[in-house]
Amino acid sequence: MSEDRVVRIGLLGFGTIGSSVFRLIEKEHDQILEGTGVDLQVIKVLEIDERKVPPDARPGVFTTLVADIVDDPSVDIVVEVIGGTDAAFDFVEAAMRKGKNVVTANKQLLASRGEALFNLARDQRRHLRFEAAVAGAVPIIKVMRESMIAAGLHTVYGIVNGTTNYILSRMYNEEGGYTEILAEAQRLGYAEADPTADVGGGDAAAKMAILASIAFHSRVTLGDVSYSGIEGISLDDVRYAKELGFVAKLIGAARLIDNKVSVRVFPALLPAVHPLASISGSNNAIFLQGDAIGEIMLMGPGAGGLPTATAVVSDIVSIANSGDLGFLQSCSCYRHLDLYPADEVESAFFIRVNVADQAGVLAQIASAFGEHGVSIASMIQKGRGDEAELVLITHPTREKQFFAAVERARSLVCCKSAPMTLRVL
Amino acid sequence: MSEDRVVRIGLLGFGTIGSSVFRLIEKEHDQILEGTGVDLQVIKVLEIDERKVPPDARPGVFTTLVADIVDDPSVDIVVEVIGGTDAAFDFVEAAMRKGKNVVTANKQLLASRGEALFNLARDQRRHLRFEAAVAGAVPIIKVMRESMIAAGLHTVYGIVNGTTNYILSRMYNEEGGYTEILAEAQRLGYAEADPTADVGGGDAAAKMAILASIAFHSRVTLGDVSYSGIEGISLDDVRYAKELGFVAKLIGAARLIDNKVSVRVFPALLPAVHPLASISGSNNAIFLQGDAIGEIMLMGPGAGGLPTATAVVSDIVSIANSGDLGFLQSCSCYRHLDLYPADEVESAFFIRVNVADQAGVLAQIASAFGEHGVSIASMIQKGRGDEAELVLITHPTREKQFFAAVERARSLVCCKSAPMTLRVL
Repeated sequence: MSEDRVVRIGLLGFGTIGSSVFRLIEKEHDQILEGTGVDLQVIKVLEIDERKVPPDARPGVFTTLVADIVDDPSVDIVVEVIGGTDAAFDFVEAAMRKGKNVVTANKQLLASRGEALFNLARDQRRHLRFEAAVAGAVPIIKVMRESMIAAGLHTVYGIVNGTTNYILSRMYNEEGGYTEILAEAQRLGYAEADPTADVGGGDAAAKMAILASIAFHSRVTLGDVSYSGIEGISLDDVRYAKELGFVAKLIGAARLIDNKVSVRVFPALLPAVHPLASISGSNNAIFLQGDAIGEIMLMGPGAGGLPTATAVVSDIVSIANSGDLGFLQSCSCYRHLDLYPADEVESAFFIRVNVADQAGVLAQIASAFGEHGVSIASMIQKGRGDEAELVLITHPTREKQFFAAVERARSLVCCKSAPMTLRVL
Repeated sequence: MSEDRVVRIGLLGFGTIGSSVFRLIEKEHDQILEGTGVDLQVIKVLEIDERKVPPDARPGVFTTLVADIVDDPSVDIVVEVIGGTDAAFDFVEAAMRKGKNVVTANKQLLASRGEALFNLARDQRRHLRFEAAVAGAVPIIKVMRESMIAAGLHTVYGIVNGTTNYILSRMYNEEGGYTEILAEAQRLGYAEADPTADVGGGDAAAKMAILASIAFHSRVTLGDVSYSGIEGISLDDVRYAKELGFVAKLIGAARLIDNKVSVRVFPALLPAVHPLASISGSNNAIFLQGDAIGEIMLMGPGAGGLPTATAVVSDIVSIANSGDLGFLQSCSCYRHLDLYPADEVESAFFIRVNVADQAGVLAQIASAFGEHGVSIASMIQKGRGDEAELVLITHPTREKQFFAAVERARSLVCCKSAPMTLRVL
């Protein structure tokens, strides 16, 4: 129906994702050509680590110099999969200034320095696409930008970090404590040597910043996201939660409240019957809620070389098939929205606290909660020698009031340790 | 970043979907303009039933003559939401011949007469888009065509009919028998006055034909789909299945087996822990499986005016934002694939049969099954006066062998009634 179009790709990085993109394009080349008329050719690959270069690589394809790619006028699309935010920023900027379209899988780059890059893309009239940056193979970016255009989205929430989901799933199955399972995940390659970004919530926060920007057409950066991780969750917490019918998950939640944006990442308890409760291992799942659609959910592998590579390839083909204009191109972040104050959000809470095993402690806590308008939905009390462990679940309340109630309760009763608190969805 | 583009729309039909499209475009007009640069204007609406025309309609917008739309050179996109396959075919054909792009929500039209229309679209270089034809607000078409381009899809299965899902969900909750709940669904507007297409599986079959065409890049028509419905399912079947840990659902399944296509719709039992088992009411859910992605799932409202209208609007904006070329345009059905013989497919089965309550009946049935290589996974036997009810679940077997075994068993034992059989996923 149309002439085949050769699209020449320069690949920055030949790690897990980069090498998967390379192999996937080789494998699916003919099928993509026949289905879309796009003739994909990876003509240059930047890789500094010579051990990663395949022994049978065609001569002249692999290079250690970024200029061999960004300055090559025959390169149409630059695929950035080196990660990090400094060199990656410079390379993406240089590529766009040289008139190239860019596909990136780099969530940290977009969440921290996206504004400059999206503005540059707009000024240069280039595509900057990033399906692979959030939720791996799950096409959440395209769905939000192109299919939800009239959906009136007001809430985006779900599980967007596979490492924490793997750890929490295994803790729920009582296969070990946090430290033990994290160490095993590192051995198996499911967690990085430095797991801070994953377990601390920073990775999920970067993804939620990107999703919120698109959902609400406003620039949300990593700095706008209030986030916490799963490091403080003990096997005891997971067990008590299970006893009460809940599953612990690291949840990202972006909401439009009174025309203000609230974007948060936090460990939360979900009822065991909640659809997100059954999302296990490294899968991601995202709910989109909007005035016109009710609720839509997308689920799939949130990581892995080959799944993530499918997202990169779909971005490449989408660029090759779209015109020079329109919403495919930019972030469409045309609105300024204020942040909704985090402590005004309403949540139900789980609290676990060790108290001296004495009569009246529960009454004192209940009265402290009552004073601040926090009502208790369910409770477990367990004796342990000379102390008791008290687990409470509250009804939804303004977070400000809840934390004031917790402070008040601590001042009234002699807590053996700081209370553990988790939000309940 | 680009000049705003006015897109003039002619709407064929002002029923549930048509009026929702009209209202949604009015409501979201400014937001869509700002986000995408597309200025949507519904300039003509065909509606023969004058009672449906809003009293405050702008003069000159509503018409009873299709020529007022397809012959109007200022109409850019025709949206066909009148349903049916005869007039709709003529109108869509006429619109494309006049150079208009077309968006349709009409699954029966595409599944039965799609080939001629897609060929015409290709020849006229027009868009023929149909996101709303399958799974309402769930953007399964765009995801499959644009995001799964390198996924190596080999299986598409799920729940694509809301009416049957509503009926089966209520039967599972023991809120009534099939006839009773169907009647109530009709009263509530969840089922049509003539429910044949829904309960008989024809609606789901049309959708699966469309999904299979896109997934496997081959023309699959309604005639290629072997389908059956839920009319034969009794409350007893649902109860026995529940007792065995299963939930009954109407399942659509398209698979690529040995480079042949198998597309089927059938009532099936799913383990209660299967993700599809919890899809209730009028929701749809579709799993995509492919070499490179593992498994992805999309879930959301499969019907309803407003949700379906979001799919129509996203198609309109996608047309306005795409160039004249590429895979957005056509069906990409470039391969011919043979059909995989239905009785060669492997399935596990549920069988319920009334037998005379006499010793040896189970042994006879088991031996008939054994002769044909069908092995039994679980069994319930219940006496009822002078007869017994026997419920069996088999291990997966070639369907040909299973049905031969059932025939053999019937010839051996005196069955009070024809056995009820359901596939088990």
